[in-house]
Amino acid sequence: MSEVKLGLCGLGTVGCGTFNVLARNASEISARAGCELRVVHVGARRDNPACDTSAVRVSRDIFKVARDPEVNILLELIGGTDTALELVREAIAHGKHVVTANKALIAEYGNELLAEAEAAGVSVSFEAAVAGGIPIIKALREGLAGNRVHWLAGIINGTGNFILTEMREKGRDFSDVLAEAQELGYAEADPTFDVEGIDAAHKLVILAAIAFGMPLQFDKVFTEGITRIATQDVDYAEELGYRIKHLGIARRTDAGIELRVHPTLIPESCLLANVNGVKNAVLVEADAVGSTLYYGAGAGAEPTASAVLADVVDLARNLARVQKPTVAALGIAMKAITPQVILAIEEVETACYLRMLAEDKPGVMSEVARIFSDADISIEALIQKPPQPGQTRVPVVILTNKTREGKLMAAAAELEKLPSIAGEITRIRVESLDG
Amino acid sequence: MSEVKLGLCGLGTVGCGTFNVLARNASEISARAGCELRVVHVGARRDNPACDTSAVRVSRDIFKVARDPEVNILLELIGGTDTALELVREAIAHGKHVVTANKALIAEYGNELLAEAEAAGVSVSFEAAVAGGIPIIKALREGLAGNRVHWLAGIINGTGNFILTEMREKGRDFSDVLAEAQELGYAEADPTFDVEGIDAAHKLVILAAIAFGMPLQFDKVFTEGITRIATQDVDYAEELGYRIKHLGIARRTDAGIELRVHPTLIPESCLLANVNGVKNAVLVEADAVGSTLYYGAGAGAEPTASAVLADVVDLARNLARVQKPTVAALGIAMKAITPQVILAIEEVETACYLRMLAEDKPGVMSEVARIFSDADISIEALIQKPPQPGQTRVPVVILTNKTREGKLMAAAAELEKLPSIAGEITRIRVESLDG
Repeated sequence: MSEVKLGLCGLGTVGCGTFNVLARNASEISARAGCELRVVHVGARRDNPACDTSAVRVSRDIFKVARDPEVNILLELIGGTDTALELVREAIAHGKHVVTANKALIAEYGNELLAEAEAAGVSVSFEAAVAGGIPIIKALREGLAGNRVHWLAGIINGTGNFILTEMREKGRDFSDVLAEAQELGYAEADPTFDVEGIDAAHKLVILAAIAFGMPLQFDKVFTEGITRIATQDVDYAEELGYRIKHLGIARRTDAGIELRVHPTLIPESCLLANVNGVKNAVLVEADAVGSTLYYGAGAGAEPTASAVLADVVDLARNLARVQKPTVAALGIAMKAITPQVILAIEEVETACYLRMLAEDKPGVMSEVARIFSDADISIEALIQKPPQPGQTRVPVVILTNKTREGKLMAAAAELEKLPSIAGEITRIRVESLDG
Repeated sequence: MSEVKLGLCGLGTVGCGTFNVLARNASEISARAGCELRVVHVGARRDNPACDTSAVRVSRDIFKVARDPEVNILLELIGGTDTALELVREAIAHGKHVVTANKALIAEYGNELLAEAEAAGVSVSFEAAVAGGIPIIKALREGLAGNRVHWLAGIINGTGNFILTEMREKGRDFSDVLAEAQELGYAEADPTFDVEGIDAAHKLVILAAIAFGMPLQFDKVFTEGITRIATQDVDYAEELGYRIKHLGIARRTDAGIELRVHPTLIPESCLLANVNGVKNAVLVEADAVGSTLYYGAGAGAEPTASAVLADVVDLARNLARVQKPTVAALGIAMKAITPQVILAIEEVETACYLRMLAEDKPGVMSEVARIFSDADISIEALIQKPPQPGQTRVPVVILTNKTREGKLMAAAAELEKLPSIAGEITRIRVESLDG
């Protein structure tokens, strides 16, 4: 095939970025693909002044692109899950390969979509769906194909990382930084997806499915956001030699797979702790290779375009030789995908950071310590500062050893019942991230 | 193809590691490859007790493996460039695909070998040749295929990084750490390849060829080792906010391509500065994606096996559908590879760290400053400490702004002529590593 013809749906940030990067780097890209790559049909409800589509057929009805007999690969860059799902189905039904940047679509509907594509002999690729421009899908699916993956942990939401970085570096409040992130365009007007961890959960589900050869199970992810992280937690973490990052973690254990998104204390010396601002990074621990880490821009027009075009070039390189995709979307064929037990969060074992407000009077620390001791949870570190003038309560920070979460929840409930402990206890999981 | 048959030549560290990882992870690997992968023929001058080859045909004459009609893919894991070159040629001539971990072979003979393979319709893959288990070849060749790469900088020799890390963290001398590295098996008995930068130059040449679509030109790399780095340089660097890393750097400029391996001061806050011990990392700056970084184990039996097997699985996934490789070894077909001007080191522009020993008397600093000023080189920072009791000379450390190296060499020669400057001036290049 001397020319591969692309249909591009969606002219928002990513669609426009993809169109422009493809035009700018056309000669490099076609040399690598071994053929010309040409956008022959754009589907978008409206034009985007950042994108000159005057030489291309443009349809307001994006489904026309999916049905266009000329189109070899459809780029689904409209986002959302309703129309996008229909569009991708229509494209598959018409024998098109699909490249998408849509994490929600793959995380929530991927099992059916990828099976449909496989049956139709076309591919659905989604490098851009996770960690923007970082080629992490390819690394897991191909680069580490000789390994048994033990676990992976990623900073996979740039907005969340920006907020936590600002809180640490400048001592700012969560809500203050969130407002700035919205102004800067990092966070959506409705920031729920970012700060509550839903976006990270979408991405984690995709990474875990590839790492462990299991179905995409978005409904099974334990998800906790960063809205309750206080600047004092950031400071105490620092005092203990840790930083707080919002991580997506997937881990293989004898009992099942852990699948969780939550704020996490990690040692300040590890590389992941030094990934700041809107950057993303994924750390993968696998049996043969050991630790590898992949770092870069997790969002933005051109980083995402980079990932979309990587998928397009992969496909074009294939199409030059053979019509069918050579690499399965999740690394193994959908029919070989094996369901695995996903652990409930109560079954997960981690160390834990607890912060509570205690009466500053004799006997309180002994009550607190007794509850941990009775629960057979050992205390790794404890911080209690002298009370501020005029205060009768002091914050107490405890770092536990690794414990089953169910046990820790019970102990925390016991602590909250103590008359000498005021209000709720803040709990943040701790990971050492070593082998 | 329901079974892909491997011929494995070399039962040293990497050969044995590959054999064992393939056996251990057979079910995962075959699920990913979509077929069985079986070592049918081992070629090795002697057995390795770490590796049970009893169920496999073993030949003492490795060329028998290259000629074995049953073998689909030959794994060249013997190292060196003489026999390895012959072996790979023989395999290509017999229509075998080749996977190799041999950086010297690819860097020095790659242009001819890859062209021969291309003409024969077989592939020569070498993910394991650069940065061990880190899938950096795949990232550059495929993951960033939509980009124009501006530059890349890598810690691509683990031994060198181990030595520099120990020097910084423990204040130890170069020769002392080198001796330990040799004991630990990180460094060869003849450590020249590692500490003089030849190993890094081999790897850099491969990365640059893929990044810029140009021929492999090992003879054009400027290479400087770490043998002259003193602990005081490490300390002064720290004082200035930098760390010293032995980097391989390839950069596209308007005048040509920079290709250089040398010790480099880099800002301590950048991720690359925090890659310690025997670990490797490569930072890539490209137009669409921006900065991405790839980190992991740069050597060792199983990390290298991981990369070898990634290539094998890639090939097997292909062979299931089509006999010919779909991705060119360097990302673009050898016939489309374009020679580019490689800049002489004198033409390269960097900032520079200079350390000299100066008489502690009036007028010396003004002479020094005059030479920089006459050469139109501006001074960014200067450290001069009070003399130690009984010393008449003091070390002077200067950090310049970015300057053409030729100009700096001339200025340094001028400085060395001053009667008030004793001995040679230590010069170490400085890179900011930002966009």
